[in-house]
Amino acid sequence: MSQTTRGRILFSYVGTGYYGWQKQPNVLTIQEELEKTLSKLFDAKVPLMASGRTDAGVHAYGQVAHFNAPKQFSRFKNLKKSLNSLLPPTIVVRDVYEAPEDFHAMISVVQKTYVYKILRTKTPSAFLHDRALWRPQDLNLDLLNQISAVLIGEHDFASFQTQGTDVATTVRKIFAVKWVQPRENLVEFRITGSGFLKQMVRNIVGTLLDLHDEKGLTNHVEEMTKILAAKSRQAAGSTAPAHGLYLHHVVYPKELDNRCRKL
Amino acid sequence: MSQTTRGRILFSYVGTGYYGWQKQPNVLTIQEELEKTLSKLFDAKVPLMASGRTDAGVHAYGQVAHFNAPKQFSRFKNLKKSLNSLLPPTIVVRDVYEAPEDFHAMISVVQKTYVYKILRTKTPSAFLHDRALWRPQDLNLDLLNQISAVLIGEHDFASFQTQGTDVATTVRKIFAVKWVQPRENLVEFRITGSGFLKQMVRNIVGTLLDLHDEKGLTNHVEEMTKILAAKSRQAAGSTAPAHGLYLHHVVYPKELDNRCRKL
Repeated sequence: MSQTTRGRILFSYVGTGYYGWQKQPNVLTIQEELEKTLSKLFDAKVPLMASGRTDAGVHAYGQVAHFNAPKQFSRFKNLKKSLNSLLPPTIVVRDVYEAPEDFHAMISVVQKTYVYKILRTKTPSAFLHDRALWRPQDLNLDLLNQISAVLIGEHDFASFQTQGTDVATTVRKIFAVKWVQPRENLVEFRITGSGFLKQMVRNIVGTLLDLHDEKGLTNHVEEMTKILAAKSRQAAGSTAPAHGLYLHHVVYPKELDNRCRKL
Repeated sequence: MSQTTRGRILFSYVGTGYYGWQKQPNVLTIQEELEKTLSKLFDAKVPLMASGRTDAGVHAYGQVAHFNAPKQFSRFKNLKKSLNSLLPPTIVVRDVYEAPEDFHAMISVVQKTYVYKILRTKTPSAFLHDRALWRPQDLNLDLLNQISAVLIGEHDFASFQTQGTDVATTVRKIFAVKWVQPRENLVEFRITGSGFLKQMVRNIVGTLLDLHDEKGLTNHVEEMTKILAAKSRQAAGSTAPAHGLYLHHVVYPKELDNRCRKL
Protein backbone atom coordinates (compact mmCIF):
# COMPACT_ATOMS: atom_id res chain seq x y z
CA MET A 1 0.00 0.00 0.00
CA SER A 2 1.09 3.54 -0.77
CA GLN A 3 2.69 5.43 2.11
CA THR A 4 1.68 8.80 0.68
CA THR A 5 -1.46 10.63 -0.39
CA ARG A 6 -1.70 13.02 -3.27
CA GLY A 7 -2.33 16.62 -2.31
CA ARG A 8 -3.65 19.30 -4.64
CA ILE A 9 -3.34 23.02 -3.99
CA LEU A 10 -4.92 26.03 -5.64
CA PHE A 11 -2.87 29.19 -5.10
CA SER A 12 -2.24 32.79 -6.14
CA TYR A 13 0.98 34.73 -6.35
CA VAL A 14 2.31 38.14 -7.24
CA GLY A 15 5.14 37.36 -9.67
CA THR A 16 7.07 40.55 -8.87
CA GLY A 17 10.38 39.77 -7.21
CA TYR A 18 10.30 36.07 -8.08
CA TYR A 19 12.28 34.37 -10.84
CA GLY A 20 9.12 32.62 -11.98
CA TRP A 21 7.64 29.33 -10.86
CA GLN A 22 10.49 26.92 -11.43
CA LYS A 23 13.18 26.25 -8.83
CA GLN A 24 16.66 27.45 -9.83
CA PRO A 25 19.85 27.77 -7.83
CA ASN A 26 20.48 31.06 -5.97
CA VAL A 27 17.26 32.84 -6.93
CA LEU A 28 13.87 33.26 -5.31
CA THR A 29 11.12 31.17 -6.97
CA ILE A 30 7.51 30.37 -6.15
CA GLN A 31 8.19 26.63 -6.27
CA GLU A 32 11.04 26.91 -3.77
CA GLU A 33 8.97 28.98 -1.33
CA LEU A 34 6.03 26.57 -1.48
CA GLU A 35 8.14 23.41 -1.27
CA LYS A 36 10.09 24.84 1.66
CA THR A 37 6.85 25.60 3.50
CA LEU A 38 5.23 22.22 2.79
CA SER A 39 8.44 20.43 3.76
CA LYS A 40 8.54 22.34 7.04
CA LEU A 41 4.95 21.38 7.87
CA PHE A 42 5.36 17.71 6.91
CA ASP A 43 8.93 17.42 8.17
CA ALA A 44 9.86 15.71 4.88
CA LYS A 45 10.88 16.72 1.37
CA VAL A 46 7.75 17.61 -0.61
CA PRO A 47 8.41 18.23 -4.32
CA LEU A 48 5.66 20.09 -6.16
CA MET A 49 4.43 19.67 -9.74
CA ALA A 50 2.55 22.69 -11.12
CA SER A 51 0.15 22.87 -14.08
CA GLY A 52 3.00 24.61 -15.89
CA ARG A 53 5.75 27.16 -15.37
CA THR A 54 5.28 30.90 -15.30
CA ASP A 55 8.03 33.36 -16.26
CA ALA A 56 9.71 35.79 -13.89
CA GLY A 57 7.29 38.62 -13.11
CA VAL A 58 4.18 36.74 -14.33
CA HIS A 59 1.35 36.53 -11.80
CA ALA A 60 -1.08 33.74 -11.01
CA TYR A 61 -4.56 34.04 -9.67
CA GLY A 62 -5.36 30.33 -9.86
CA GLN A 63 -2.25 28.18 -10.29
CA VAL A 64 -2.57 24.48 -9.38
CA ALA A 65 0.06 22.00 -8.18
CA HIS A 66 0.12 18.49 -6.79
CA PHE A 67 2.43 16.79 -4.31
CA ASN A 68 2.83 13.52 -2.49
CA ALA A 69 2.26 14.03 1.18
CA PRO A 70 2.52 11.73 4.15
CA LYS A 71 -0.54 9.46 4.25
CA GLN A 72 -2.00 11.23 7.27
CA PHE A 73 -1.73 14.70 5.78
CA SER A 74 -5.48 15.10 5.51
CA ARG A 75 -5.63 14.96 9.29
CA PHE A 76 -3.66 18.21 9.49
CA LYS A 77 -5.99 20.74 11.02
CA ASN A 78 -6.19 24.03 9.14
CA LEU A 79 -3.50 23.06 6.64
CA LYS A 80 -4.43 26.02 4.41
CA LYS A 81 -4.17 28.42 7.33
CA SER A 82 -0.84 26.96 8.45
CA LEU A 83 0.59 27.26 4.94
CA ASN A 84 -0.56 30.87 4.58
CA SER A 85 0.85 31.84 7.94
CA LEU A 86 4.28 30.50 6.94
CA LEU A 87 4.34 31.64 3.29
CA PRO A 88 5.38 35.13 2.23
CA PRO A 89 2.22 37.27 1.79
CA THR A 90 2.74 37.42 -1.99
CA ILE A 91 1.95 33.67 -2.21
CA VAL A 92 -1.49 32.62 -0.96
CA VAL A 93 -2.93 29.10 -0.87
CA ARG A 94 -6.61 29.39 -1.76
CA ASP A 95 -7.55 25.73 -1.26
CA VAL A 96 -6.02 22.38 -0.31
CA TYR A 97 -7.48 19.06 -1.49
CA GLU A 98 -6.83 15.42 -0.98
CA ALA A 99 -6.65 14.15 -4.58
CA PRO A 100 -6.74 10.71 -6.22
CA GLU A 101 -3.37 9.28 -7.23
CA ASP A 102 -4.19 9.71 -10.92
CA PHE A 103 -4.56 13.47 -10.51
CA HIS A 104 -1.56 15.13 -12.16
CA ALA A 105 -1.41 18.95 -12.07
CA MET A 106 0.25 19.12 -15.50
CA ILE A 107 -0.84 16.03 -17.40
CA SER A 108 -4.50 16.14 -16.33
CA VAL A 109 -5.02 19.74 -17.54
CA VAL A 110 -8.06 20.18 -19.81
CA GLN A 111 -7.73 23.92 -20.35
CA LYS A 112 -6.03 27.01 -19.04
CA THR A 113 -7.06 30.64 -19.11
CA TYR A 114 -4.57 33.51 -19.13
CA VAL A 115 -5.44 37.19 -18.74
CA TYR A 116 -3.22 40.01 -19.97
CA LYS A 117 -3.92 43.41 -18.38
CA ILE A 118 -3.29 46.78 -20.01
CA LEU A 119 -3.61 50.08 -18.19
CA ARG A 120 -4.84 52.87 -20.47
CA THR A 121 -4.27 55.94 -18.29
CA LYS A 122 -2.40 59.03 -19.52
CA THR A 123 -0.07 58.85 -16.50
CA PRO A 124 1.38 55.56 -15.20
CA SER A 125 0.00 54.11 -11.96
CA ALA A 126 2.16 53.66 -8.86
CA PHE A 127 -0.23 50.93 -7.73
CA LEU A 128 -0.28 48.92 -10.97
CA HIS A 129 3.28 49.51 -12.18
CA ASP A 130 4.08 45.80 -11.83
CA ARG A 131 0.53 44.50 -12.35
CA ALA A 132 -0.43 45.70 -15.85
CA LEU A 133 1.24 46.95 -19.03
CA TRP A 134 0.96 50.75 -19.12
CA ARG A 135 -0.06 51.91 -22.58
CA PRO A 136 -1.48 55.43 -22.85
CA GLN A 137 -2.13 55.17 -26.62
CA ASP A 138 -5.56 54.33 -28.01
CA LEU A 139 -6.67 50.71 -28.36
CA ASN A 140 -9.27 49.56 -30.87
CA LEU A 141 -10.82 46.55 -29.15
CA ASP A 142 -13.00 45.66 -32.15
CA LEU A 143 -9.92 45.47 -34.34
CA LEU A 144 -8.02 43.46 -31.72
CA ASN A 145 -10.94 41.03 -31.40
CA GLN A 146 -11.01 40.58 -35.17
CA ILE A 147 -7.27 39.85 -35.39
CA SER A 148 -7.33 37.56 -32.36
CA ALA A 149 -10.14 35.41 -33.77
CA VAL A 150 -7.56 33.97 -36.20
CA LEU A 151 -6.08 32.06 -33.24
CA ILE A 152 -9.22 30.09 -32.42
CA GLY A 153 -9.07 26.38 -33.20
CA GLU A 154 -6.27 23.84 -33.45
CA HIS A 155 -3.10 25.30 -34.96
CA ASP A 156 0.65 24.93 -34.98
CA PHE A 157 1.68 27.88 -32.80
CA ALA A 158 5.43 27.68 -33.59
CA SER A 159 5.35 31.38 -34.60
CA PHE A 160 4.46 32.27 -31.01
CA GLN A 161 6.87 29.98 -29.20
CA THR A 162 10.05 31.23 -27.57
CA GLN A 163 12.80 28.62 -27.94
CA GLY A 164 14.28 26.97 -24.89
CA THR A 165 11.96 24.15 -23.91
CA ASP A 166 11.70 20.82 -25.72
CA VAL A 167 8.12 20.02 -26.62
CA ALA A 168 6.76 17.03 -28.54
CA THR A 169 4.54 19.23 -30.66
CA THR A 170 3.85 22.94 -31.13
CA VAL A 171 0.21 22.22 -31.97
CA ARG A 172 -2.23 23.61 -29.42
CA LYS A 173 -5.97 24.24 -29.38
CA ILE A 174 -7.36 27.69 -28.56
CA PHE A 175 -10.98 27.62 -27.36
CA ALA A 176 -11.67 31.30 -26.81
CA VAL A 177 -10.05 34.74 -27.08
CA LYS A 178 -11.54 38.05 -26.08
CA TRP A 179 -10.50 41.67 -25.56
CA VAL A 180 -12.67 43.36 -22.96
CA GLN A 181 -12.73 46.56 -20.93
CA PRO A 182 -13.88 45.59 -17.41
CA ARG A 183 -13.24 49.10 -16.04
CA GLU A 184 -12.54 52.53 -17.50
CA ASN A 185 -8.84 52.62 -18.39
CA LEU A 186 -8.34 48.87 -17.94
CA VAL A 187 -8.28 46.54 -20.93
CA GLU A 188 -7.94 42.76 -20.64
CA PHE A 189 -7.09 40.10 -23.18
CA ARG A 190 -8.46 36.72 -22.13
CA ILE A 191 -7.33 33.55 -23.83
CA THR A 192 -8.34 29.96 -23.10
CA GLY A 193 -6.57 26.97 -24.64
CA SER A 194 -5.64 23.32 -24.20
CA GLY A 195 -2.15 24.42 -23.27
CA PHE A 196 0.42 27.07 -24.11
CA LEU A 197 3.98 27.04 -25.44
CA LYS A 198 6.82 28.96 -23.81
CA GLN A 199 5.89 32.69 -23.67
CA MET A 200 3.06 31.98 -26.12
CA VAL A 201 0.57 34.41 -24.57
CA ARG A 202 3.18 37.18 -24.28
CA ASN A 203 4.23 36.62 -27.92
CA ILE A 204 0.59 36.67 -29.04
CA VAL A 205 -0.18 39.89 -27.13
CA GLY A 206 3.02 41.56 -28.39
CA THR A 207 2.21 40.58 -31.99
CA LEU A 208 -1.43 41.69 -31.73
CA LEU A 209 -0.36 45.11 -30.38
CA ASP A 210 2.31 45.42 -33.11
CA LEU A 211 -0.26 44.69 -35.82
CA HIS A 212 -2.76 47.07 -34.17
CA ASP A 213 -0.17 49.86 -34.27
CA GLU A 214 1.29 49.12 -37.72
CA LYS A 215 0.78 52.17 -39.92
CA GLY A 216 -0.51 51.58 -43.43
CA LEU A 217 -1.58 47.99 -42.72
CA THR A 218 -5.01 47.50 -44.30
CA ASN A 219 -5.77 43.82 -43.78
CA HIS A 220 -4.78 42.98 -40.22
CA VAL A 221 -6.58 39.64 -40.21
CA GLU A 222 -4.77 38.48 -43.34
CA GLU A 223 -1.46 39.51 -41.81
CA MET A 224 -2.18 37.57 -38.60
CA THR A 225 -3.19 34.54 -40.66
CA LYS A 226 0.14 34.72 -42.52
CA ILE A 227 2.11 35.02 -39.28
CA LEU A 228 0.38 31.94 -37.83
CA ALA A 229 0.88 29.97 -41.08
CA ALA A 230 4.61 30.83 -41.21
CA LYS A 231 5.27 28.60 -38.16
CA SER A 232 8.33 30.70 -37.46
CA ARG A 233 9.05 32.98 -34.51
CA GLN A 234 10.69 35.43 -36.92
CA ALA A 235 7.34 35.97 -38.65
CA ALA A 236 5.65 37.21 -35.47
CA GLY A 237 6.12 40.41 -33.44
CA SER A 238 7.44 41.39 -30.05
CA THR A 239 7.03 39.74 -26.64
CA ALA A 240 4.73 41.67 -24.32
CA PRO A 241 6.26 42.33 -20.86
CA ALA A 242 5.76 39.67 -18.19
CA HIS A 243 4.17 41.95 -15.57
CA GLY A 244 0.85 42.27 -17.43
CA LEU A 245 0.26 38.51 -17.52
CA TYR A 246 -1.84 36.41 -15.12
CA LEU A 247 -2.42 32.67 -15.15
CA HIS A 248 -6.10 33.04 -14.33
CA HIS A 249 -7.31 29.47 -13.86
CA VAL A 250 -6.73 25.86 -14.82
CA VAL A 251 -9.50 23.38 -15.58
CA TYR A 252 -9.31 19.61 -14.91
CA PRO A 253 -11.77 16.86 -15.87
CA LYS A 254 -14.92 17.05 -13.81
CA GLU A 255 -14.56 13.37 -13.06
CA LEU A 256 -11.17 14.02 -11.39
CA ASP A 257 -12.47 17.09 -9.53
CA ASN A 258 -15.29 14.96 -8.14
CA ARG A 259 -12.77 12.59 -6.60
CA CYS A 260 -10.89 15.45 -4.88
CA ARG A 261 -11.87 16.30 -1.33
CA LYS A 262 -11.39 19.83 -0.05
CA LEU A 263 -9.65 19.91 3.33
CA MET B 1 13.11 90.03 -7.38
CA SER B 2 12.76 86.42 -6.40
CA GLN B 3 15.20 84.04 -8.03
CA THR B 4 12.87 81.09 -7.65
CA THR B 5 9.37 80.06 -8.66
CA ARG B 6 7.04 77.99 -6.58
CA GLY B 7 6.32 74.54 -7.97
CA ARG B 8 3.36 72.37 -6.98
CA ILE B 9 3.19 68.63 -7.59
CA LEU B 10 0.36 66.15 -7.32
CA PHE B 11 1.61 62.60 -6.82
CA SER B 12 0.77 59.00 -5.85
CA TYR B 13 2.80 56.46 -3.98
CA VAL B 14 2.65 52.90 -2.75
CA GLY B 15 3.69 53.23 0.89
CA THR B 16 5.01 49.64 1.10
CA GLY B 17 8.75 49.59 1.65
CA TYR B 18 8.97 53.28 2.59
CA TYR B 19 9.37 54.69 6.09
CA GLY B 20 6.57 57.14 5.35
CA TRP B 21 6.73 60.60 3.82
CA GLN B 22 9.19 62.37 6.07
CA LYS B 23 12.95 62.26 5.49
CA GLN B 24 14.89 60.41 8.19
CA PRO B 25 18.50 59.28 8.31
CA ASN B 26 19.35 55.84 6.91
CA VAL B 27 15.87 54.85 5.75
CA LEU B 28 13.97 55.07 2.49
CA THR B 29 11.29 57.79 2.47
CA ILE B 30 9.04 59.28 -0.20
CA GLN B 31 10.31 62.80 0.53
CA GLU B 32 13.93 61.76 0.10
CA GLU B 33 13.23 60.02 -3.24
CA LEU B 34 11.32 63.00 -4.62
CA GLU B 35 13.79 65.62 -3.39
CA LYS B 36 16.69 63.60 -4.79
CA THR B 37 14.99 63.43 -8.19
CA LEU B 38 14.01 67.12 -8.30
CA SER B 39 17.50 68.11 -7.16
CA LYS B 40 19.03 66.01 -9.92
CA LEU B 41 16.84 67.65 -12.58
CA PHE B 42 17.41 71.21 -11.32
CA ASP B 43 21.02 70.65 -10.31
CA ALA B 44 20.27 72.32 -6.96
CA LYS B 45 18.89 71.37 -3.56
CA VAL B 46 15.09 71.31 -3.76
CA PRO B 47 13.39 70.81 -0.37
CA LEU B 48 9.75 69.70 -0.53
CA MET B 49 6.86 70.61 1.76
CA ALA B 50 3.93 68.17 1.63
CA SER B 51 0.30 68.69 2.70
CA GLY B 52 1.17 66.49 5.66
CA ARG B 53 3.13 63.42 6.62
CA THR B 54 2.00 59.87 6.06
CA ASP B 55 3.12 56.95 8.23
CA ALA B 56 5.30 54.07 7.06
CA GLY B 57 3.20 51.78 4.85
CA VAL B 58 0.42 54.33 4.23
CA HIS B 59 -0.36 54.98 0.56
CA ALA B 60 -1.26 58.16 -1.26
CA TYR B 61 -3.34 58.52 -4.35
CA GLY B 62 -3.28 62.32 -4.39
CA GLN B 63 -0.60 63.79 -2.14
CA VAL B 64 0.45 67.41 -2.81
CA ALA B 65 3.76 69.17 -2.15
CA HIS B 66 5.34 72.49 -3.02
CA PHE B 67 8.93 73.50 -3.64
CA ASN B 68 10.98 76.47 -4.70
CA ALA B 69 12.50 75.84 -8.09
CA PRO B 70 14.87 77.83 -10.25
CA LYS B 71 12.98 80.71 -11.91
CA GLN B 72 13.14 79.09 -15.32
CA PHE B 73 11.76 75.72 -14.16
CA SER B 74 8.53 76.18 -16.09
CA ARG B 75 10.55 76.10 -19.29
CA PHE B 76 11.56 72.49 -18.55
CA LYS B 77 10.01 70.42 -21.31
CA ASN B 78 8.12 67.38 -20.07
CA LEU B 79 9.04 67.90 -16.44
CA LYS B 80 6.42 65.37 -15.31
CA LYS B 81 7.75 62.77 -17.73
CA SER B 82 11.37 63.40 -16.67
CA LEU B 83 10.46 63.06 -13.00
CA ASN B 84 8.56 59.81 -13.60
CA SER B 85 11.38 58.32 -15.63
CA LEU B 86 13.83 58.96 -12.78
CA LEU B 87 11.59 58.10 -9.82
CA PRO B 88 11.07 54.54 -8.58
CA PRO B 89 7.84 53.17 -10.17
CA THR B 90 6.09 53.17 -6.77
CA ILE B 91 6.14 56.99 -6.78
CA VAL B 92 4.34 58.67 -9.69
CA VAL B 93 3.98 62.39 -10.34
CA ARG B 94 0.48 62.97 -11.71
CA ASP B 95 0.79 66.71 -12.40
CA VAL B 96 3.28 69.57 -12.08
CA TYR B 97 2.15 73.20 -11.72
CA GLU B 98 3.73 76.59 -11.52
CA ALA B 99 2.13 78.03 -8.37
CA PRO B 100 1.86 81.50 -6.85
CA GLU B 101 4.28 82.26 -4.01
CA ASP B 102 1.46 82.25 -1.47
CA PHE B 103 0.57 78.62 -2.26
CA HIS B 104 1.69 76.48 0.66
CA ALA B 105 1.03 72.73 0.42
CA MET B 106 0.38 72.41 4.18
CA ILE B 107 -0.90 75.81 5.34
CA SER B 108 -3.24 76.40 2.38
CA VAL B 109 -5.11 73.08 2.84
CA VAL B 110 -8.92 73.45 2.96
CA GLN B 111 -9.75 69.79 3.35
CA LYS B 112 -8.31 66.32 3.02
CA THR B 113 -9.93 62.98 2.25
CA TYR B 114 -8.56 59.68 3.46
CA VAL B 115 -9.81 56.24 2.42
CA TYR B 116 -9.34 53.09 4.50
CA LYS B 117 -9.73 49.83 2.55
CA ILE B 118 -10.86 46.53 4.03
CA LEU B 119 -10.78 43.25 2.13
CA ARG B 120 -13.64 40.97 3.11
CA THR B 121 -12.62 37.69 1.44
CA LYS B 122 -12.46 34.39 3.29
CA THR B 123 -8.88 33.84 2.15
CA PRO B 124 -6.27 36.64 2.11
CA SER B 125 -5.25 38.12 -1.23
CA ALA B 126 -1.67 37.91 -2.53
CA PHE B 127 -2.36 41.00 -4.63
CA LEU B 128 -3.81 43.19 -1.87
CA HIS B 129 -1.79 41.94 1.11
CA ASP B 130 -0.15 45.37 1.52
CA ARG B 131 -3.00 47.43 0.05
CA ALA B 132 -6.00 46.70 2.28
CA LEU B 133 -6.72 45.33 5.76
CA TRP B 134 -7.83 41.70 5.44
CA ARG B 135 -10.82 41.02 7.63
CA PRO B 136 -12.86 37.90 6.83
CA GLN B 137 -15.46 38.55 9.57
CA ASP B 138 -18.80 40.20 8.83
CA LEU B 139 -19.10 43.97 8.74
CA ASN B 140 -22.34 45.81 9.40
CA LEU B 141 -21.97 48.97 7.32
CA ASP B 142 -25.22 50.49 8.62
CA LEU B 143 -23.95 50.17 12.17
CA LEU B 144 -20.54 51.55 11.22
CA ASN B 145 -22.16 54.52 9.48
CA GLN B 146 -24.26 55.22 12.57
CA ILE B 147 -21.25 55.15 14.92
CA SER B 148 -19.10 57.20 12.52
CA ALA B 149 -21.67 59.99 12.26
CA VAL B 150 -20.68 60.99 15.81
CA LEU B 151 -17.43 62.34 14.34
CA ILE B 152 -19.04 64.88 12.03
CA GLY B 153 -18.56 68.51 13.00
CA GLU B 154 -15.93 70.41 14.95
CA HIS B 155 -14.57 68.41 17.89
CA ASP B 156 -11.53 67.98 20.02
CA PHE B 157 -10.09 64.73 18.62
CA ALA B 158 -7.51 64.19 21.39
CA SER B 159 -8.93 60.66 21.91
CA PHE B 160 -7.81 59.75 18.41
CA GLN B 161 -4.38 61.35 18.44
CA THR B 162 -1.19 59.34 18.81
CA GLN B 163 1.37 61.30 20.84
CA GLY B 164 4.61 62.38 19.25
CA THR B 165 3.94 65.57 17.34
CA ASP B 166 3.40 68.99 18.91
CA VAL B 167 0.21 70.61 17.69
CA ALA B 168 -1.32 73.94 18.71
CA THR B 169 -4.77 72.42 19.04
CA THR B 170 -6.37 68.98 18.80
CA VAL B 171 -9.60 70.50 17.49
CA ARG B 172 -10.41 69.50 13.92
CA LYS B 173 -13.49 69.69 11.74
CA ILE B 174 -14.88 66.57 10.05
CA PHE B 175 -17.08 67.33 7.04
CA ALA B 176 -18.09 63.84 5.94
CA VAL B 177 -17.70 60.18 6.85
CA LYS B 178 -19.02 57.20 4.95
CA TRP B 179 -18.67 53.41 4.89
CA VAL B 180 -19.29 52.06 1.39
CA GLN B 181 -18.88 48.82 -0.53
CA PRO B 182 -17.59 49.77 -4.00
CA ARG B 183 -17.03 46.12 -5.00
CA GLU B 184 -18.03 42.75 -3.64
CA ASN B 185 -15.60 41.92 -0.83
CA LEU B 186 -14.15 45.43 -0.65
CA VAL B 187 -15.30 47.88 1.99
CA GLU B 188 -14.07 51.47 2.20
CA PHE B 189 -14.25 54.05 4.94
CA ARG B 190 -14.04 57.57 3.52
CA ILE B 191 -13.42 60.54 5.78
CA THR B 192 -13.06 64.21 4.85
CA GLY B 193 -11.89 66.84 7.31
CA SER B 194 -10.12 70.17 7.72
CA GLY B 195 -7.05 68.29 8.86
CA PHE B 196 -6.03 65.21 10.82
CA LEU B 197 -3.94 64.59 13.92
CA LYS B 198 -1.16 61.99 14.04
CA GLN B 199 -2.62 58.54 13.16
CA MET B 200 -6.11 60.00 13.63
CA VAL B 201 -7.73 58.06 10.78
CA ARG B 202 -6.07 54.79 11.84
CA ASN B 203 -7.16 55.36 15.45
CA ILE B 204 -10.72 56.15 14.32
CA VAL B 205 -10.93 53.05 12.11
CA GLY B 206 -9.46 50.83 14.82
CA THR B 207 -11.91 52.19 17.40
CA LEU B 208 -14.91 51.86 15.05
CA LEU B 209 -14.02 48.22 14.33
CA ASP B 210 -13.49 47.53 18.06
CA LEU B 211 -16.93 48.97 18.88
CA HIS B 212 -18.49 47.08 15.95
CA ASP B 213 -17.08 43.82 17.32
CA GLU B 214 -17.71 44.45 21.02
CA LYS B 215 -20.01 41.74 22.33
CA GLY B 216 -22.87 42.84 24.55
CA LEU B 217 -22.57 46.50 23.61
CA THR B 218 -26.08 47.81 23.02
CA ASN B 219 -25.62 51.53 22.39
CA HIS B 220 -22.64 51.90 20.08
CA VAL B 221 -23.37 55.54 19.27
CA GLU B 222 -23.45 56.48 22.94
CA GLU B 223 -20.14 54.67 23.48
CA MET B 224 -18.49 56.50 20.56
CA THR B 225 -19.83 59.81 21.90
CA LYS B 226 -18.26 59.04 25.29
CA ILE B 227 -14.92 58.14 23.71
CA LEU B 228 -14.83 61.39 21.76
CA ALA B 229 -15.84 63.42 24.82
CA ALA B 230 -13.12 61.80 26.97
CA LYS B 231 -10.41 63.63 24.98
CA SER B 232 -8.02 60.89 26.02
CA ARG B 233 -6.27 58.33 23.82
CA GLN B 234 -6.84 55.73 26.59
CA ALA B 235 -10.60 56.02 26.07
CA ALA B 236 -10.42 54.96 22.41
CA GLY B 237 -9.59 51.62 20.79
CA SER B 238 -6.82 50.16 18.69
CA THR B 239 -4.87 51.63 15.78
CA ALA B 240 -5.80 50.08 12.43
CA PRO B 241 -2.78 48.88 10.40
CA ALA B 242 -1.10 51.41 8.11
CA HIS B 243 -1.37 49.36 4.90
CA GLY B 244 -5.15 49.87 4.53
CA LEU B 245 -4.88 53.67 4.54
CA TYR B 246 -4.75 55.99 1.51
CA LEU B 247 -4.42 59.78 1.47
CA HIS B 248 -6.98 60.15 -1.31
CA HIS B 249 -6.93 63.85 -2.13
CA VAL B 250 -6.24 67.31 -0.78
CA VAL B 251 -8.35 70.36 -1.55
CA TYR B 252 -7.01 73.95 -1.73
CA PRO B 253 -8.93 77.22 -2.14
CA LYS B 254 -10.32 77.58 -5.66
CA GLU B 255 -8.82 81.06 -5.81
CA LEU B 256 -5.31 79.56 -5.31
CA ASP B 257 -5.96 76.73 -7.78
CA ASN B 258 -6.96 79.30 -10.37
CA ARG B 259 -3.58 80.97 -10.06
CA CYS B 260 -1.72 77.67 -10.59
CA ARG B 261 -0.66 76.84 -14.12
CA LYS B 262 -0.33 73.19 -15.16
CA LEU B 263 2.96 72.52 -16.96
